[in-house]
Amino acid sequence: MNSKIRIGIVGYGNLGRGAELAISQNQDMELVAIFTRRKPDSLDTKSNVVHISNMLDFKNKIDVMLLCGGSAKDLGEQVPMTSQYFNTVDSFDNHKKIPEYFEQVNNIAKKSNKLSLISVGWDPGLFSLIRLLGETILPDGTNYTFWGKGISQGHSDAIRKIKGVKDGVQYTVPSEEILKKVKNFENLNISPCKMHKRICYVVCKDGEDLSRIENEIKTMPNYFADYDTTVNFISEEELKRNHSKMPHGGFVIRTGTTKSNAKHKIEFNLSLDSNPEFTSSILVAYARAVNKMALEGKTGAITIFDIPLVYLSPKTGEQLRRELL
Amino acid sequence: MNSKIRIGIVGYGNLGRGAELAISQNQDMELVAIFTRRKPDSLDTKSNVVHISNMLDFKNKIDVMLLCGGSAKDLGEQVPMTSQYFNTVDSFDNHKKIPEYFEQVNNIAKKSNKLSLISVGWDPGLFSLIRLLGETILPDGTNYTFWGKGISQGHSDAIRKIKGVKDGVQYTVPSEEILKKVKNFENLNISPCKMHKRICYVVCKDGEDLSRIENEIKTMPNYFADYDTTVNFISEEELKRNHSKMPHGGFVIRTGTTKSNAKHKIEFNLSLDSNPEFTSSILVAYARAVNKMALEGKTGAITIFDIPLVYLSPKTGEQLRRELL
Repeated sequence: MNSKIRIGIVGYGNLGRGAELAISQNQDMELVAIFTRRKPDSLDTKSNVVHISNMLDFKNKIDVMLLCGGSAKDLGEQVPMTSQYFNTVDSFDNHKKIPEYFEQVNNIAKKSNKLSLISVGWDPGLFSLIRLLGETILPDGTNYTFWGKGISQGHSDAIRKIKGVKDGVQYTVPSEEILKKVKNFENLNISPCKMHKRICYVVCKDGEDLSRIENEIKTMPNYFADYDTTVNFISEEELKRNHSKMPHGGFVIRTGTTKSNAKHKIEFNLSLDSNPEFTSSILVAYARAVNKMALEGKTGAITIFDIPLVYLSPKTGEQLRRELL
Repeated sequence: MNSKIRIGIVGYGNLGRGAELAISQNQDMELVAIFTRRKPDSLDTKSNVVHISNMLDFKNKIDVMLLCGGSAKDLGEQVPMTSQYFNTVDSFDNHKKIPEYFEQVNNIAKKSNKLSLISVGWDPGLFSLIRLLGETILPDGTNYTFWGKGISQGHSDAIRKIKGVKDGVQYTVPSEEILKKVKNFENLNISPCKMHKRICYVVCKDGEDLSRIENEIKTMPNYFADYDTTVNFISEEELKRNHSKMPHGGFVIRTGTTKSNAKHKIEFNLSLDSNPEFTSSILVAYARAVNKMALEGKTGAITIFDIPLVYLSPKTGEQLRRELL
């Protein structure tokens, strides 16, 4: 008899590799297969790899599918497809498109009697939980979210598209000055542009005009123009040596007052060596919750707001009350 | 038509007064009555005050009762009594007795078809949620809980019982050195005695031997003997002037590694001007959740682990996905 939770991974980029590692840290789970659009034997892994076109062969062999593609292109297509046949967990992080995406996935999963948890990770995800706790416990107050220090993929891509740029990365960094003010209960009405700095490390092609490139970066609308942006030109070797890891983190802070004017602060912060490994560890823990709720008959799309935290743990409620409450 | 959530408060100490204030910050709630064992007209409030013996007159007039007595004596008696007739929320914080208390309240509330949320506040409560998130997302890691800087009622009481002591308070303070080590990912196997310092402010009666009193405090088993304890003798005036507020706070930190040995840190911290006002704000937010879950037919005892956070908010799921996810 096999009572482990049977997991599938769709996509084998950074997030998929992280999920593969995270599953091995959870004794009550097993990785049944990794599904890929590439040639299965081209993946560097000892796990079972299957071409994505053969996913339906696993219809009754997998309890929860972790969708590990990117939000920009993959998830919008793969999740609706997968939730016709499987319970799913994804980290769709395009905040503006979440409402529409939720409706789409909800309709499909309701029809197929499957359960799909969308947009789970650390933001959207854990940070969202803290924002919700903050505004419900301290209704008279303000939420602040700071991201970083960490690499923003979108901004790094924007740099790399500039003529004459060979490679580059962009770190989003919280403004220490603003962070300090928020922590000291200063009430700020401030845009994310002033809360963050952007630090770029750029490798140029030979003979390019560095000041032209620096100017193009710093004046790029939406991405950099409204920010305190620093551009550092470095060699390809230095980029590889010092900027090939994927650290990240951030802060959610709620400051507020109770009716007597007493001040209170709720702070949550993350410091992550590997953004994809941490994010996929969240996906894996929430896969446990999805499996339990699906077994109880829950269907449709849900978010992190809909899940009692008891479902995240392999322990019983009794054990959790004894050990952690 | 009145669609507000109708709240009752049992007990009008610091927590009850905090709950009265917190209800006024939530537009979807109304305070129906405060129940007290004292003479109702002796309470300094404009709210409706009723003697506790007349509670049953409100059987169909109150949706959720907030039990605001102390864990040591009041709650163990009042919650089982109240949950025979009302949905309840309490902050029972005797960690060791929680399992037994849960069973007792669960049996009563199941019989009466009421819902009772026990042991909610910040610890047990929010801190418990973070400990659960920590160990499920990073299974290979360690949870650390630091309390303070804040007044411990139990330790203050212990000081006041010493012969020759007129009054006194005790602050529990996290060890900055240990806190720094934990934040720097040092893996410590350390007892709470080494993680905290105890700082006492003591007012003595005239002509007492201060060194005898200091020694009695510092050698008191369980309370002080194993801790780094500092005793300051001060005047009654200074005690009133500088030590009559009730600030508190603390830290929950999870450090752990994913399988590649990448290090990750999850930190949650609170800084509170008024411990009772913040705690009662939590009780009030969770009363909203209890009301919703009771209307859906849920009965028995539950803890903070069993509640999806969507229930805490007066907003719809759709609104929360749009604004906070």
